[in-house]
Amino acid sequence: IQTKLPKVGTTIFTVMSQLAQQHNAVNLGQGFPDFDGPQALRDALAAAMNSGKNQYAPMTGIAPLREQIALKTERLYGRKVNADSDITVTSGATEAIFAAIAAVVRPGDEVIVLDPCYDCYEPAIDLVGGRAVHVPLNLPDFSVDWQRVKDAITPRTRLLMVNSPHNPSGAVFSAADLDTLAEITCDSEILVLSDEVYEHIVFDGAAHQSVLRHAELAERSFVVSSFGKTYHCTGWKVGYCVAPRALSAEFRKVHQYLTFCTFGPAQWAFAEVLANDPQHYLDLPAFYQEKRDRFRALLAPSRFQLLPVGGAYFQLVDYSAISDKDDLNFCEWLVREAGVAAIPVSAFYETAPDARIIRFCFAKSDATLSAAAERLARL
Amino acid sequence: IQTKLPKVGTTIFTVMSQLAQQHNAVNLGQGFPDFDGPQALRDALAAAMNSGKNQYAPMTGIAPLREQIALKTERLYGRKVNADSDITVTSGATEAIFAAIAAVVRPGDEVIVLDPCYDCYEPAIDLVGGRAVHVPLNLPDFSVDWQRVKDAITPRTRLLMVNSPHNPSGAVFSAADLDTLAEITCDSEILVLSDEVYEHIVFDGAAHQSVLRHAELAERSFVVSSFGKTYHCTGWKVGYCVAPRALSAEFRKVHQYLTFCTFGPAQWAFAEVLANDPQHYLDLPAFYQEKRDRFRALLAPSRFQLLPVGGAYFQLVDYSAISDKDDLNFCEWLVREAGVAAIPVSAFYETAPDARIIRFCFAKSDATLSAAAERLARL
Ligand SMILES: CSCCC(=O)C(=O)O
Ligand SMILES: CSCCC(=O)C(=O)O
Repeated sequence: IQTKLPKVGTTIFTVMSQLAQQHNAVNLGQGFPDFDGPQALRDALAAAMNSGKNQYAPMTGIAPLREQIALKTERLYGRKVNADSDITVTSGATEAIFAAIAAVVRPGDEVIVLDPCYDCYEPAIDLVGGRAVHVPLNLPDFSVDWQRVKDAITPRTRLLMVNSPHNPSGAVFSAADLDTLAEITCDSEILVLSDEVYEHIVFDGAAHQSVLRHAELAERSFVVSSFGKTYHCTGWKVGYCVAPRALSAEFRKVHQYLTFCTFGPAQWAFAEVLANDPQHYLDLPAFYQEKRDRFRALLAPSRFQLLPVGGAYFQLVDYSAISDKDDLNFCEWLVREAGVAAIPVSAFYETAPDARIIRFCFAKSDATLSAAAERLARL
Repeated sequence: IQTKLPKVGTTIFTVMSQLAQQHNAVNLGQGFPDFDGPQALRDALAAAMNSGKNQYAPMTGIAPLREQIALKTERLYGRKVNADSDITVTSGATEAIFAAIAAVVRPGDEVIVLDPCYDCYEPAIDLVGGRAVHVPLNLPDFSVDWQRVKDAITPRTRLLMVNSPHNPSGAVFSAADLDTLAEITCDSEILVLSDEVYEHIVFDGAAHQSVLRHAELAERSFVVSSFGKTYHCTGWKVGYCVAPRALSAEFRKVHQYLTFCTFGPAQWAFAEVLANDPQHYLDLPAFYQEKRDRFRALLAPSRFQLLPVGGAYFQLVDYSAISDKDDLNFCEWLVREAGVAAIPVSAFYETAPDARIIRFCFAKSDATLSAAAERLARL
């Protein structure tokens, strides 16, 4: 059988997690916390499950969860969205990204993606017959070169994908980025797909610049988020998409045939914790900033050079003082020889720049971070 | 925005469930039980969740669940499959069907579907640029007209989709059907996608004719099933795909970018009940046969004519003695005037035959079945 996706192997996250296990390494590769979210969340899930909520949830998600998402959106981003028509719950942000792309990208359409970017974007574009047009972010700060974005636009451009806080770099949008994004797209046919799964993890007092803050932009955008990062349960796979009615209608046409609906008891659980404990996500920046600062302090004596981190839970490091291997080889060496798993940043690129940068996930207990840093400082 | 899926509205299942709620009707429309599965299942899920299994499951599904599926496959269908390379856990059978189609259907490829069929098949084919070729099943018994299937094959035919036990009709394959299916496909490039979500619900002592029983067929087939129907928890959304290594590899390339992985604690729960209580699914035929026979007896005095049911949990009825409305209008009338929701069978057709047939779901408590039958017998 000839493959339809010749560029695709097993995702780097799976590969590195398996290597980590094989070598008994500290796993700072795949992005997930090694601690749990609030007990109230698990209790609410159990209660839902034990009170008969085990059949199909509504295709769009349960109403109380959509209402909580609408409330949060208004509270945080000053934007009223209609819980009935504008919000769809999905089986993780990955499903939401696939559904948004499949809903609007036609064969021959172009989708602008900003490299480095998460590895699920391009295969989704390919599978519906679109073409990813890669525009690299600026180095070393991973800011958007908006002029290059403008230059990449053609009459076939259908969608522009953005991601702030940014995986893998931790770069965050400024309000000016939103303005420029609006300027570029708002007089065109170009739609926006904004991956905001780290929306609640922004540091140093900055505010998350959600596309939803910008009225004009919001009118043409799919905004995707997820509860996995916010509630320390990446394995629960509940995400959502916020988009204006007309876009949501198209989104739902795809979603209803991708997964139809999402595990119901988890939806009830998130609805409950969102209603009862908004403090959880309001505290998240401080919670992760402490981890960021701790990890950076632990690595300060090492020969890794630390790049700045504005949000999300990843630390990029330049290892050129240690090795001149390429980043995949270096990661393989690192997991084997130092017993620490990381992710090579080239995995997020179509055409990787000549850099020596890898990504560590710092969403880990203090003990894990210390154990990793101890091994890394020896190099 | 111009839609990419002009034929698609909201699925009939959502529409009828909403109407049922509005009219306070007994809901025999959308296919789901109104009772729960074993308490052990919910307890196992809670235990997994409270013992730290809340981060990403492996992309392919947790190993103990894949092993249980492999054991069951060997026990029931006499077929050894490799749990590592041949089984992938998905977010429901719907995701598995989408992933299998997206993995092998290219723009311009044809996919033969047998009408009536489940409504998610064709949109998945459309979204990846394929073309559904509809071959009607024989009436009134919903058997396959294999000669018509042969006649529909062209050099572009890539995939043939089958479904036994069949939704909506309850028709089941015979061993001869498998032989003919093998004969048609095995010397060709045509792959098979077999939707077997009702595999454990086959009546009157018959055995489920899984494509996996047939060595040659299994070599070219994606076999999709789900735990939702088997464990009375349609809202849990855990399904899987069994396919030989090479097909599974392509399947996984898509799956990893559709949802990446599936809610972990539910996977642990299914692994546990499959290991501890195979009796549950072995008892399922008798359990649902009792319901089928009860519902048929209740409707016997009515003016509905009952079609035979060999498997799954749906009863088709001919209502031509009551009304000559078309089936969608009749269902709308029925939910409003009689207070019972059903599904029009035309919703499963590209070109519906001139018949007066609707579908009732009998996966309901005895009280629900009695309440519905009482209303229906009055007509
Ligand atoms: C779906 S596994 C990857 C998790 C993640 O978001 C990351 O590591 O970037
Ligand atoms: C996903 S809702 C439809 C459920 C079902 O399998 C059916 O009613 O046929």
